[in-house]
Amino acid sequence: MSDQTSPLARPFPALPAIPGVRAAVARARYKNWDRCDLTYVAFDEGTAVAGVTTKSKCPSPEVEWCRAALPLGRARALVVNAGNSNAFTGHRGRAAVEAIAAKVAGAVGCQPSDVFVSSTGVIGVPLPIDKAEAGLDAVLTAPEASWEDAAATIMTTDTFTKGAVTRAVIGGKTVSLVGIIKGSGMIAPDMATMLGYVFTDAAVEPAFLQTMLDSANVASFSSITVDGDTSTSDTVLAFATGKAGNEVLRSFDDAGADAFQSALTDLCTQLAHLVVRDGEGASKFIAITVEGAVSNESAHRIALSIANSPLVKTAIAGEDANWGRVVMAVGKAGEPAERDKLSIRFGATQVAREGLAVEGYDEAPVAAHLKGQDIEVGVELGLGEGRATVWTCDLTHGYISINADYRS
Amino acid sequence: MSDQTSPLARPFPALPAIPGVRAAVARARYKNWDRCDLTYVAFDEGTAVAGVTTKSKCPSPEVEWCRAALPLGRARALVVNAGNSNAFTGHRGRAAVEAIAAKVAGAVGCQPSDVFVSSTGVIGVPLPIDKAEAGLDAVLTAPEASWEDAAATIMTTDTFTKGAVTRAVIGGKTVSLVGIIKGSGMIAPDMATMLGYVFTDAAVEPAFLQTMLDSANVASFSSITVDGDTSTSDTVLAFATGKAGNEVLRSFDDAGADAFQSALTDLCTQLAHLVVRDGEGASKFIAITVEGAVSNESAHRIALSIANSPLVKTAIAGEDANWGRVVMAVGKAGEPAERDKLSIRFGATQVAREGLAVEGYDEAPVAAHLKGQDIEVGVELGLGEGRATVWTCDLTHGYISINADYRS
Repeated sequence: MSDQTSPLARPFPALPAIPGVRAAVARARYKNWDRCDLTYVAFDEGTAVAGVTTKSKCPSPEVEWCRAALPLGRARALVVNAGNSNAFTGHRGRAAVEAIAAKVAGAVGCQPSDVFVSSTGVIGVPLPIDKAEAGLDAVLTAPEASWEDAAATIMTTDTFTKGAVTRAVIGGKTVSLVGIIKGSGMIAPDMATMLGYVFTDAAVEPAFLQTMLDSANVASFSSITVDGDTSTSDTVLAFATGKAGNEVLRSFDDAGADAFQSALTDLCTQLAHLVVRDGEGASKFIAITVEGAVSNESAHRIALSIANSPLVKTAIAGEDANWGRVVMAVGKAGEPAERDKLSIRFGATQVAREGLAVEGYDEAPVAAHLKGQDIEVGVELGLGEGRATVWTCDLTHGYISINADYRS
Repeated sequence: MSDQTSPLARPFPALPAIPGVRAAVARARYKNWDRCDLTYVAFDEGTAVAGVTTKSKCPSPEVEWCRAALPLGRARALVVNAGNSNAFTGHRGRAAVEAIAAKVAGAVGCQPSDVFVSSTGVIGVPLPIDKAEAGLDAVLTAPEASWEDAAATIMTTDTFTKGAVTRAVIGGKTVSLVGIIKGSGMIAPDMATMLGYVFTDAAVEPAFLQTMLDSANVASFSSITVDGDTSTSDTVLAFATGKAGNEVLRSFDDAGADAFQSALTDLCTQLAHLVVRDGEGASKFIAITVEGAVSNESAHRIALSIANSPLVKTAIAGEDANWGRVVMAVGKAGEPAERDKLSIRFGATQVAREGLAVEGYDEAPVAAHLKGQDIEVGVELGLGEGRATVWTCDLTHGYISINADYRS
């Protein structure tokens, strides 16, 4: 955990208990630190699970474990280790995950495939099985922990705890959705990892929960970027205990399914924004909206090209309305774009329209907008109906300091 | 021009005159500065030309002008403006390029399409035609300039002049190849632009010159990256006067064609490396070699993913042998890779082999290598015969300072 809280931090919200879910935390001491670093969440029988994981071709054994277990659709427990990612550790890394799942399955009385495992932290060092087992012994008998304790325990170098809540009504029953997430902190000498968990008392058939999580993911976790780098361990899991007593959701034909999708997307978007708000060195939260593209996918790729451009990110850090860099990033995206149809705005102010600088535009509202913490960049391509928004943060000396100013 | 010369700078070499080529420089005062900013190069009749330009979908009118003229294959003059890129300026930008070409064509007695034009600098401001015409009046009667004067005049915020020379023997005739280039300096509020020019007295048929330049480009200008951003104005042109008197090269069946290709690739590689050595804030010159990929193209994309990773670049800035970040960048490239076949070295020292950290590897030579200015990262994928090298620089506070620490 960094000494300095992100200037874009948000307070941890009041989160309700989710019937059928119980969290606990313990000290496994994966690193030489005096804090809880093992999170355990138990689920009542009948809990459905869905998940999305990193697209990396070099995933951690935890990611491979979760991918294998997800199609079964059942969950009884979640274990999250902080301080060691267990990535790039060969058969010993796999053995650690298997040992954790086996031990929890024995204690709970379930299948190992009902146990989901994530790890985040140093790469290349096998997760020490003895520490994991001692940590599990402690956590299995520990008192129930608060959501904020759990959110704090999954953190690595995050600077604030991150949680969100939404609700939906399904056939007259109100269901709650709670989420915790850890994000783009860096733990030397490893890359950042995003781990997010959603818990709901709604009753949802596992395959449909996966469909809805995939949909929510597009507009949330897949629409944020800090530096364009992708962890080997990124994982988001959604658990639905069914305790709310609603008619089980099986498809979008069911009453309340749209409302639940909407609430899930909202929750995931809140969580994703919190990750950006804790981006390394972030001083500005930036929303980049691309409209008028030939398709939504094309708009998404152009928005990501802008969001990942170091020159755009440094310009915004410098509070500079440098729309030329936005043109550059549109041009390099490799997607259909026509220079002479391109319009750009900062906040509400058009600075370029149809391929030309807007002559004599009022710089005062642009300068005022860029001095704020929440920045909007809008691009209109003038080609079609495609639209997407991507969120990112600026690129500052803080990013360099966090990632370069130490020696291994 | 920055106050501080890059620590990776190289002295300007002694470059020979190229028969049939004559350079001159003048003050057009595109910015409020007291330096030459207009470069003019005249070519004798019969000079062949080839070129490669930015892949940006939003190119400058200069790039469009050059693209239209290149298929004709003839050049009589080159004009390079520094201080104003003329990009994103609509019909007024096009008019400026046309005015320059028309004026030079009138003075020389050639077609406007024989005149090549580049501009680099501020975006969104049409190049002032009156300044360009006054500058041309001065330069057309100016004394011959040295290669180093020309290299200095095309600079924007480059911190050192950049030139290179190679020679080749074609059918007993020795030909010379000279190149100048400007690179990844930044001119507020615009993005960097790479402009490179190659001059040779060899006789080469234009279409074959284009073939050879395309080939040289793959291993040189297309294999470097500073920050992954792509200018709207990037241009490399090659001019061949034919004054060396060799039999005209028309295909690789001709004697000496291989030697010329080799010399051209060498020259372009030298020039490309100089651009990286003047990367904004660069303190390390990094060569990333990927071997064992399924194809050369796949190796190239993986090497670029590593070279463009902010986490890899900051780790090397921090002299940290952070191979976990290299794994991450391989994994996110989207190309075939298998974690358990992946090996990584820094300098000559293997730090990971077949998906595992090399236990107890000697850290001393790795630390010594990373303290140097020239860093080598090697990745072996173990999948096939594909191979590529990409060059980049590290990401430091200097980059942030240059690109963020000003206000418009």
